[in-house]
Amino acid sequence: MTADKSLDEQVTEVLPLPQALLLPRIAIEDVQPTIDGGQFAVKAVVGQEVPVTARVFADGHDKLAVLLAWKPVGAVDWQRAAMTDKGNNHWQGRLRVGGQGRYMYRIEAWIDQFGSYCYELEKKFVAAVPIDLELQEGREHVRQASERSQGELAERLAALHDELSQRSNDGQFECFLKPATAVLMRQADHQAYLSLSHDFALDVERQLAQFASWYELFPRSVTDDAARHGTFNDVHARLPAIRDMGFDVLYFPPIHPIGRRHRKGPNNSLTAGPDDPGSPYAIGSEEGGHEAIHPQLGSREDFRRLVAAAAEHGLEIALDFAIQCSQDHPWLQQHPGWFNWRPDGTIKYAENPPKKYQDIVNVDFYAADAVPALWIELRDIVVGWVEEGVKIFRVDNPHTKPLPFWQWLIADVRGRYPEVIFLAEAFTAPAMMARLGKIGYSQSYTYFTWRNTKAELATYFTELNQSPWRECYRPNFFVNTPDINPAFLHQSGRAGFLIRAALATMGSGLWGMYSGFEICESAPLPGKEEYLDSEKYQIRPRDYSAPGNIIAEIAQLNRIRRQHPALQTHLGLQVYNAWNDNILYFGKRTADRSSFILVAVSLDPHNAQEAHFELPLWEFGLPDDAQTRGEDLMNGHTWTWYGKTQWMRIEPWHQPFGIWRITPG
Amino acid sequence: MTADKSLDEQVTEVLPLPQALLLPRIAIEDVQPTIDGGQFAVKAVVGQEVPVTARVFADGHDKLAVLLAWKPVGAVDWQRAAMTDKGNNHWQGRLRVGGQGRYMYRIEAWIDQFGSYCYELEKKFVAAVPIDLELQEGREHVRQASERSQGELAERLAALHDELSQRSNDGQFECFLKPATAVLMRQADHQAYLSLSHDFALDVERQLAQFASWYELFPRSVTDDAARHGTFNDVHARLPAIRDMGFDVLYFPPIHPIGRRHRKGPNNSLTAGPDDPGSPYAIGSEEGGHEAIHPQLGSREDFRRLVAAAAEHGLEIALDFAIQCSQDHPWLQQHPGWFNWRPDGTIKYAENPPKKYQDIVNVDFYAADAVPALWIELRDIVVGWVEEGVKIFRVDNPHTKPLPFWQWLIADVRGRYPEVIFLAEAFTAPAMMARLGKIGYSQSYTYFTWRNTKAELATYFTELNQSPWRECYRPNFFVNTPDINPAFLHQSGRAGFLIRAALATMGSGLWGMYSGFEICESAPLPGKEEYLDSEKYQIRPRDYSAPGNIIAEIAQLNRIRRQHPALQTHLGLQVYNAWNDNILYFGKRTADRSSFILVAVSLDPHNAQEAHFELPLWEFGLPDDAQTRGEDLMNGHTWTWYGKTQWMRIEPWHQPFGIWRITPG
Repeated sequence: MTADKSLDEQVTEVLPLPQALLLPRIAIEDVQPTIDGGQFAVKAVVGQEVPVTARVFADGHDKLAVLLAWKPVGAVDWQRAAMTDKGNNHWQGRLRVGGQGRYMYRIEAWIDQFGSYCYELEKKFVAAVPIDLELQEGREHVRQASERSQGELAERLAALHDELSQRSNDGQFECFLKPATAVLMRQADHQAYLSLSHDFALDVERQLAQFASWYELFPRSVTDDAARHGTFNDVHARLPAIRDMGFDVLYFPPIHPIGRRHRKGPNNSLTAGPDDPGSPYAIGSEEGGHEAIHPQLGSREDFRRLVAAAAEHGLEIALDFAIQCSQDHPWLQQHPGWFNWRPDGTIKYAENPPKKYQDIVNVDFYAADAVPALWIELRDIVVGWVEEGVKIFRVDNPHTKPLPFWQWLIADVRGRYPEVIFLAEAFTAPAMMARLGKIGYSQSYTYFTWRNTKAELATYFTELNQSPWRECYRPNFFVNTPDINPAFLHQSGRAGFLIRAALATMGSGLWGMYSGFEICESAPLPGKEEYLDSEKYQIRPRDYSAPGNIIAEIAQLNRIRRQHPALQTHLGLQVYNAWNDNILYFGKRTADRSSFILVAVSLDPHNAQEAHFELPLWEFGLPDDAQTRGEDLMNGHTWTWYGKTQWMRIEPWHQPFGIWRITPG
Repeated sequence: MTADKSLDEQVTEVLPLPQALLLPRIAIEDVQPTIDGGQFAVKAVVGQEVPVTARVFADGHDKLAVLLAWKPVGAVDWQRAAMTDKGNNHWQGRLRVGGQGRYMYRIEAWIDQFGSYCYELEKKFVAAVPIDLELQEGREHVRQASERSQGELAERLAALHDELSQRSNDGQFECFLKPATAVLMRQADHQAYLSLSHDFALDVERQLAQFASWYELFPRSVTDDAARHGTFNDVHARLPAIRDMGFDVLYFPPIHPIGRRHRKGPNNSLTAGPDDPGSPYAIGSEEGGHEAIHPQLGSREDFRRLVAAAAEHGLEIALDFAIQCSQDHPWLQQHPGWFNWRPDGTIKYAENPPKKYQDIVNVDFYAADAVPALWIELRDIVVGWVEEGVKIFRVDNPHTKPLPFWQWLIADVRGRYPEVIFLAEAFTAPAMMARLGKIGYSQSYTYFTWRNTKAELATYFTELNQSPWRECYRPNFFVNTPDINPAFLHQSGRAGFLIRAALATMGSGLWGMYSGFEICESAPLPGKEEYLDSEKYQIRPRDYSAPGNIIAEIAQLNRIRRQHPALQTHLGLQVYNAWNDNILYFGKRTADRSSFILVAVSLDPHNAQEAHFELPLWEFGLPDDAQTRGEDLMNGHTWTWYGKTQWMRIEPWHQPFGIWRITPG
């Protein structure tokens, strides 16, 4: 223990005078949008207008000049736009950035001395008090501005000063107040007491990071016969149907060689037969690791052709990035120092409690040999697939890998390829879900599959529209996954699938579907939210034209999403009143209200439900008795609503939801 | 413009790999209480227990060790206490600091490797799966711990390892899990992946900063005759009465020499007669400035005797710190460079729109000559008065002086004399009000005088209990001031004064009264919220025994405050349901609910009001039909309440409020 500090040291420890003299005179507080005080980048997409607000104020009564400044992270020069005083020290500006990548923004404020002078001069002039002294002071402002300027500006200010000196009081007053004088004086402004906010980061991604419909399939199941392993070449035939349903992203579980040791058999059994294909998440065999392609799926050339064919159909291929190894992964031999070996020469298999993955082992990111070789290798693997045309990665269980690793990897990859999108497959506590978004994930899996009641859904949708979620987290509402066969669907029948599809497609700009959902597959492992005969462990051919499928409805839902900007994000959602606990009723609307969609979903797949409900007339500034136009976006019917309170009836055997566009008048 | 950065520079600009490798593996987020991400110190008082919460989490499933650490700012060693896992990554700890001054606190977290090991070992043991390998790993943990330790600890760990090696599996299991082993291993813990939060500041003040009753008087008015200037010596006679009313702080407007030039006459008139005393806020004459005493009040010795006599009565003298000058202030001659002179050789008089102060001028804190001489001079003036025994300052219009100046001055003075309390007399926009608290003001004037309706008061009281206000701002509810003769009181009669006194005394730990309130003075300047014949400009003797005075009620309200800890702060206030818009009904309660006071105030000074209201049984964990004990704290009556819904009737001519202590059972 060393000695505590003396009184004099203590007095100056908190704030020494020289440091106090350098503190900004103007306070810039509560800048929004920000995450954790600027520690992480806020999310936006290309073309999005980002409102920026702050409280800006100083002592006294002077006028302030407040600017919003921004630039790409690598650029030198800032762009600037004036912010507007909204009263009570609240200032607002707007950022509109054209390209992808990371931007910085900040707020710049100074005391507008000439503006303050003009404000007071005008008040005194209007009050008809003598202003001779004020005019003299004003001329001094102009003289000093001229003196500190150069070239043409200095000359024009000098000329202005001369002109003022020759004018009457009324003439001078008029001259001080005219816009041209303000422009000149602003150019010569020395920005008294200039104060800067921190620099805040903004990650601008392409539209698809916020608005996309994902379709997941196992290429090996694209076959007519469970005994014949499907291939990349087989997938070509599925592309038109997937595109016709309105999807943008076609996502494959891992396509890499699958290990043999501890391979899982059907229904997650611990022993596989010789012909069992194994889980594609058990990555790595003597045929290669994360950089390689499972030979039974095809060649690298086949993969490239599929990526190109998908692109021709408007689909992007998304790959799974699952940092784990089968016990046959080449790394166990090549880089034993990347793993934690037990005293008996084995490696502990992976767990994600309560799930056990006996067929896979994990690397140790902070093992002495792994830093930084493993990190760089993983980055190079991602970059390698990017160079094959894959710009979207669904990342398996990111919450079990170190946060700093992801923060670096995503920054590094997106620094090179800003178009790359990372989806976090995290199902864990809320803080970690949000944190993954903060450190760079473009979007994330969600709790959506376990939110079923009106209260649960309303709370969850609302929370995602609030801080900190809205700044850092884009929810991708998967209605099912190979891991999640939602309990709600086990007994709901077709109507239940339509309910969940409507909630997902209308609730967020991002939604996803795992194949089989469109034909209402729901047979569970008894008592579990898992699929019976899960495709994770076996090849599952399907008949997509099976009767009762909801392909047409999915196509229409996706079509509506494309037509209406309000539906292209999870933001702008507001839950409204419908007096029935089985009917979730909400609005999605753009900031300018030009796109305003009302969505009512009955959560009861079995019975008709009725409710009175409120049209949000107040959001248009309309009185309670106003009339509005309604349009049913599922069938194109239009009508006029009279007044605020309306009534609806939903029959799930017909269609368990209504989607209506509302316009004033 | 210089060139933008290259791609490689851009890639590494966001987060270079070496930097990523140093990032903490454990996330520590949303630490509370904090202000603006730790930019300013949070407020507390001596003996207060400050709950500290944070979200702490890491990748994977390991157990974390999380500590709360704190120390006085000048100290070297941290004190530490374990935080508790409240679920969902929320951790909670408690800070209890004994002395005044600035403290720092932080959160320390690391991966508890041995704790994680024991957790898994126990699960496997309970599941009756083989644990030989686990036990071998456990012994290795102990061996490594011994190796990295020294002295006795190393020996004891080595002995533990030997013991384990000789035991059966069951014996080893028992040995790993026993508390003594945990203690030993914790001592040898190498704190894997240790992560620290920022250091956050906490300003600990004495109780009086949070709980005090202020009484304001003009010493010159303590006289029987408006023609005879009252003195410090006259004030002695008032001390017992002020103390008997239960006040702690006796606050005087400025006691310094008053200028002659532009001296104000009665009712703020622009010309004073030869005998008009002038406003004490026009500080400075040839007899001295802010360091001096107005000769008509007495000598420095008189002042010292008054400070001592007040202390004997349990009263502290508070002085006014008003940084402004009459045109006769010595500084105008001695330090002309501290002022902004106009072209005609004058200085612009002060304004606080719409108020005009023709008798005073302001210094310019950033004038070339004023930095830092003026700042140091002002600090020395405050320190000079502190050395005269004045530990409380009411600061006049701080929002018109630079924020960095206050931040430095308060830190400097409180670094020397941590017992000094600063009250901000700021009536301005909310952001500035809060900011003054953030930069160091112990407490502040408020909007209380203009909050009259139930909705206004409920909203305001509630807001002050929420972030950011609760962390940075202690409201001092003045019921009136020499500047504010509240409109509500002009017509309310005696009941109105009781209403406002009850609201102030029960609403906050801090309240204040300007003399005359206790005898219900309310005559306004016509149409204004100012006093007729304001004491600011003339001597105003008073008869404090005038009939209809509310001295007894004030004394009882202050007595109740001293007896009940829940009333010694503005925090812990919760508005409850009373079904009458004229009755504000709220609770004040300590965190442990041991002090729980219910307050019902009728806001109608003229008519009886009745209401059903809810007893907050749920806050005691009681069912709706529970019975509770009630005690009327104004008259000592007690009773039993049966059930949640009760009824009240308030007759303002009797007493316009009720104050009840509630206890379970």
